[in-house]
Amino acid sequence: MVEEFHGYAAFDKKSVLKYYSYTPKPLGDEDIEVEITHCGICGSDLHTMRSDWRPTLYPAILGHEIVGNVLEIGSKVVDFKIGNRVGIGCQVYSCGNCDECNSGYEQLCAKKVFTYNDMWKDAEGVPTEYQAQGGYADKIRAHSSFVFHIPTEISSAEACPLLCAGLSTFAPLKRHNVGPKSKVGIAGIGGLGHLAIQWAAKMKAEVTAISHSSQKRDEAIKLGATHFLDILDPNDVEKFTHSQDIILSTSCSSNTDWSKYMNFIKNHGTLILIGLPEAPLQIPVFAFMRFVKVEGSLTGGRQDIKDMLTFAAKHNVRPWIQIVPMKDVNEGIKSVLNGEARYRVVLEN
Amino acid sequence: MVEEFHGYAAFDKKSVLKYYSYTPKPLGDEDIEVEITHCGICGSDLHTMRSDWRPTLYPAILGHEIVGNVLEIGSKVVDFKIGNRVGIGCQVYSCGNCDECNSGYEQLCAKKVFTYNDMWKDAEGVPTEYQAQGGYADKIRAHSSFVFHIPTEISSAEACPLLCAGLSTFAPLKRHNVGPKSKVGIAGIGGLGHLAIQWAAKMKAEVTAISHSSQKRDEAIKLGATHFLDILDPNDVEKFTHSQDIILSTSCSSNTDWSKYMNFIKNHGTLILIGLPEAPLQIPVFAFMRFVKVEGSLTGGRQDIKDMLTFAAKHNVRPWIQIVPMKDVNEGIKSVLNGEARYRVVLEN
Repeated sequence: MVEEFHGYAAFDKKSVLKYYSYTPKPLGDEDIEVEITHCGICGSDLHTMRSDWRPTLYPAILGHEIVGNVLEIGSKVVDFKIGNRVGIGCQVYSCGNCDECNSGYEQLCAKKVFTYNDMWKDAEGVPTEYQAQGGYADKIRAHSSFVFHIPTEISSAEACPLLCAGLSTFAPLKRHNVGPKSKVGIAGIGGLGHLAIQWAAKMKAEVTAISHSSQKRDEAIKLGATHFLDILDPNDVEKFTHSQDIILSTSCSSNTDWSKYMNFIKNHGTLILIGLPEAPLQIPVFAFMRFVKVEGSLTGGRQDIKDMLTFAAKHNVRPWIQIVPMKDVNEGIKSVLNGEARYRVVLEN
Repeated sequence: MVEEFHGYAAFDKKSVLKYYSYTPKPLGDEDIEVEITHCGICGSDLHTMRSDWRPTLYPAILGHEIVGNVLEIGSKVVDFKIGNRVGIGCQVYSCGNCDECNSGYEQLCAKKVFTYNDMWKDAEGVPTEYQAQGGYADKIRAHSSFVFHIPTEISSAEACPLLCAGLSTFAPLKRHNVGPKSKVGIAGIGGLGHLAIQWAAKMKAEVTAISHSSQKRDEAIKLGATHFLDILDPNDVEKFTHSQDIILSTSCSSNTDWSKYMNFIKNHGTLILIGLPEAPLQIPVFAFMRFVKVEGSLTGGRQDIKDMLTFAAKHNVRPWIQIVPMKDVNEGIKSVLNGEARYRVVLEN
């Protein structure tokens, strides 16, 4: 009997998702099969749906903020038992042997397999016939090294956005050793930013929420920001000149005025780009003469995920979510596309 | 009697330099007066001459690659005697007390005085009536902390370009601990690049000279490059993909294709900008997802200058220069503007 998993897939750039069945990769010795209970909707899902970044392998089941219960385990899997509550993020495989894997950057492994819009590869890294399909579905299989126990303090629905949005904001702050003496600006208060503010605040940094929506001031303070910088207010722009050690930019608007952001950063400070705009960055050069650096970030590695979940459980960092039934996935997507979500939508089976 | 120093000054954006006399700042207790024997022509001089970066304080005597002999010392000056052969670079003063000064970044001191196109400031940082004038002249006064002994191994004329071009290329390589395991690309083979190749090679890095002028291949190898990357050759572009730990870009062309440069850099590597184009950088965002960083650099601090001179003396790093009499300064400038200099012009009194 051919096994089938069932979910909601994009079939082209423009249409809504439709019910779809596919044959999953065979369960390998080190793989885990998960019965999905929840899956977050991430901005990347929508970009992939529309082939914004590269041509998508349609039909594509999206979703890489996945929580569920272990249904089956390969013969060599340790640390997991059937029934365990687990999460899967943006990646379902890496080689485990290369320089990147050995230094905790599994997301850069040349043999990695993304959770969706990718093909499973054999031991030599050659694509197989099995497409990796995501979490808007009933089940998923992943290599056990990319399946993570969810701490009991965190609900399944709330755990979902942590696995991508949470990780993507936590990892760079961890990498920069953000702590009590850090002044950290979080630019953009949305799905990513509302988590970034919480992380930085709980790391005891002095947090400045940076936004052009002054009506988000109260929410920013509630999330833990010490200051609110209204980027459209010239007084604020003046007041915060050269004030931040780090600005974490979660904005992916191509209209961002990077000269303003750079100007808020102290000499020797860093602008970290998480939300990646589609157009090339236009960066004025003079801030570079103050030794301000620009760097990016891409999700996080395995250890980052574990550290992030532990930190979230201990410090009560949670996404603000709205739960939508899985069958109403297209409604959930519409709410994200329209910018109505405050701040993440999670699908529930 | 009013003291006067004499030199060649720009009086406006367009004309040639003309002979000019000015009243120097009074010699302070910690100042040194130098009789100038040589002064290099730097690209910054030409930008200042034309008010490219900001309105220039005309009349402006340019030149910040200055070598000469100590003529007079203030009462509190130690470490220098009349007759010593010394050099002065881009800066003639910093406060010596702020965080930047204390961490070796005197070039970022808020009270700094540039060698030219700046006003001397009082102890509170308030501009005085005395304009700082540069080295296309007979004499100059500087704070003794920005006067440096020239090692005996280095000729006065050859020492000049080290004081700006040399420092600006040495400091970032030092800061990044470039050594035997480093793969360093030097983009642009000119006044800056021909020194950068030498530093990196003498630091025992594997050096790739990056240029769009394939006729510079032989010179690059002679300077110490292991490889030559012709940026217009698709085979080279392919071959050097993700190959460099660092690329030091000495190019200030606004047409530079940064996506190519970024693509030559390994995951986690760094693009360091030394030559700063006037237009904003257009940086494609995808390299940031490989954790490639972009940073700038601005000359160097006092310790960097000392380390650079010691390193140059020990490892025989020298600029390639052409000597022109000081009175023919406008001929020297023309040769730099036309790109004929191979690679630096030094004026001689």
